[in-house]
Amino acid sequence: MGVVLNLEDGKREPSIRKLIDLTAAGLGEVNKLILSKAGSDVEMIPEIANHLISSGGKRLRPMVTLASAEMFGYSGDGHVKLATSVEFMHTATLLHDDVVDESDMRRGRKTARTIWGNQASVLVGDFLLGQAFRMMVEVGSLDALDILSTAASIIAEGEVMQLAAAKNLETTEDEYFSVIKAKTAALFSAAAEVGPVIAGASRNDRAALRSYGMNLGLAFQLIDDALDYGGDTKKLGKNVGDDFREGKVTLPVILCYRRGSSEERAFWKQAIEDNIADDAALEKAMALMARHGAITDTIGRARHFGEIARDALAPLPATTYKSALIDVIDFCISRVV
Amino acid sequence: MGVVLNLEDGKREPSIRKLIDLTAAGLGEVNKLILSKAGSDVEMIPEIANHLISSGGKRLRPMVTLASAEMFGYSGDGHVKLATSVEFMHTATLLHDDVVDESDMRRGRKTARTIWGNQASVLVGDFLLGQAFRMMVEVGSLDALDILSTAASIIAEGEVMQLAAAKNLETTEDEYFSVIKAKTAALFSAAAEVGPVIAGASRNDRAALRSYGMNLGLAFQLIDDALDYGGDTKKLGKNVGDDFREGKVTLPVILCYRRGSSEERAFWKQAIEDNIADDAALEKAMALMARHGAITDTIGRARHFGEIARDALAPLPATTYKSALIDVIDFCISRVV
Repeated sequence: MGVVLNLEDGKREPSIRKLIDLTAAGLGEVNKLILSKAGSDVEMIPEIANHLISSGGKRLRPMVTLASAEMFGYSGDGHVKLATSVEFMHTATLLHDDVVDESDMRRGRKTARTIWGNQASVLVGDFLLGQAFRMMVEVGSLDALDILSTAASIIAEGEVMQLAAAKNLETTEDEYFSVIKAKTAALFSAAAEVGPVIAGASRNDRAALRSYGMNLGLAFQLIDDALDYGGDTKKLGKNVGDDFREGKVTLPVILCYRRGSSEERAFWKQAIEDNIADDAALEKAMALMARHGAITDTIGRARHFGEIARDALAPLPATTYKSALIDVIDFCISRVV
Repeated sequence: MGVVLNLEDGKREPSIRKLIDLTAAGLGEVNKLILSKAGSDVEMIPEIANHLISSGGKRLRPMVTLASAEMFGYSGDGHVKLATSVEFMHTATLLHDDVVDESDMRRGRKTARTIWGNQASVLVGDFLLGQAFRMMVEVGSLDALDILSTAASIIAEGEVMQLAAAKNLETTEDEYFSVIKAKTAALFSAAAEVGPVIAGASRNDRAALRSYGMNLGLAFQLIDDALDYGGDTKKLGKNVGDDFREGKVTLPVILCYRRGSSEERAFWKQAIEDNIADDAALEKAMALMARHGAITDTIGRARHFGEIARDALAPLPATTYKSALIDVIDFCISRVV
């Protein structure tokens, strides 16, 4: 099952090509720094780090940091260090998430915890987080440190919030947004804001990029949650139905449960709370979502935040960087095909 | 079974009374800050944080930070924030350690993971680490940030090292020291060094406190490892034999294994590698340690590092702070009674 989107400029396939080209030099440096800072005499550390780092993430967050610094004329190497820090924070979160969610697959590959165990995943995550902070300190911007360390706390707080709300079908849409704002959007927001910060851009420019990142992050997570009930496995790198089988109460489920009949709610309780989430149940869940427009409306919410992200950048002069960052919004939303 | 130490100044019971009195005002502020920074609308966070924080740790590390700043005339509130950061880093490590070690008891109480689960322990640890970094950033000293973020990486690296060497009886004494230097001594060292750093003390003063902390930390961990084979449960807050039952290769085991006959080595292999570590095995292990002087010599190593810690402070003028910090060395070593 797929959901076809009517993109505003339906003529071209939205792409992050422009962003990739613009940040190519910086990203090359980021990749070098990743390898060197994930290095350690303790063999297990580079092994696990490389497993995750080479497993085909798009490096979206570090590219956003690089672009958001360069667009304000930054010419040092601090943005490379901050971009690498952002990627390490993200990687550390993935390592800990997989332990918390007991996930076996990530981006189409075995998770680190299934290969090296939960223990190593926890500790290597801690190591990468420590290395991230060391790199930030090297850059020497207290403002950037403030933004990224605050994000680190908020992300963890969001993860605990999600854990506390686990399998609770009475979770409201507002509560869901609090969780994804903290666990996903806060890092996108920080990744975008530190660029103008180290470039010495204005208060308004900082606010613009912060808002762009926050809303992009919300859109990104909403689409991720929609994809779980109707994406193409290869594109997504996770299997359709992973969230369902793990009993995650994401927006598609929240909408479907709220809009459903009492019989349907009983089905959701069985599936999510009692974990009766086999293939037949998944098929039924997807049929109910289609009936109630749960996926379409989840994507609609994502488009809403995408619009806000776009408008956040509106006051900035028209540059290739600006249009590359706007393409990212369309790219994230168009992942649902 | 107990080991009686002949303290150099055998007349008095070594105590941290002087340190407690000197840092009382600062420690009151630390305790307030702990409560406020471990606060969150996400209920599980303060619950878990309070469980750990109220469970009777001595607050040795934050007291060292407070004293090491005040002894150089520091009069702001930055040392309170750094001391709280140090305690949070320590608490985060305990939370993750208990998950990694699958421990059920810590300081005589159930561990957080047995009450709230591994997942919450991992995430609340991450939250406390994030909060620690935020507080450090507030203080605004890049040198202090460098010292503490480097310690965070090294601690995690040490934990991975320990995991990789787990149950390996061929671990050398040198490898053991690399592990405890990273996982325990690095934080003591950082806790002591950031004091002179924010007080604007000299390079030599920084080096003195760093060395004091490092060697104090080594002595502390050695005694901790000795206590596991002969301390008083109530004093220790963990049960004698915990390390043995978990198959940890600590110095008492390393010495005993290396000095033992081939029959004895077969016993150790069964106990540590095959996990045949019941009460009878523990009794035998303790008898072998007595035979080979493994505990006595572990304590001897601790005294060696205690001497180095004392000499590190020797060039400093004789003040109450200095003598309070020296008392800490004796206190740590005299825990074996």
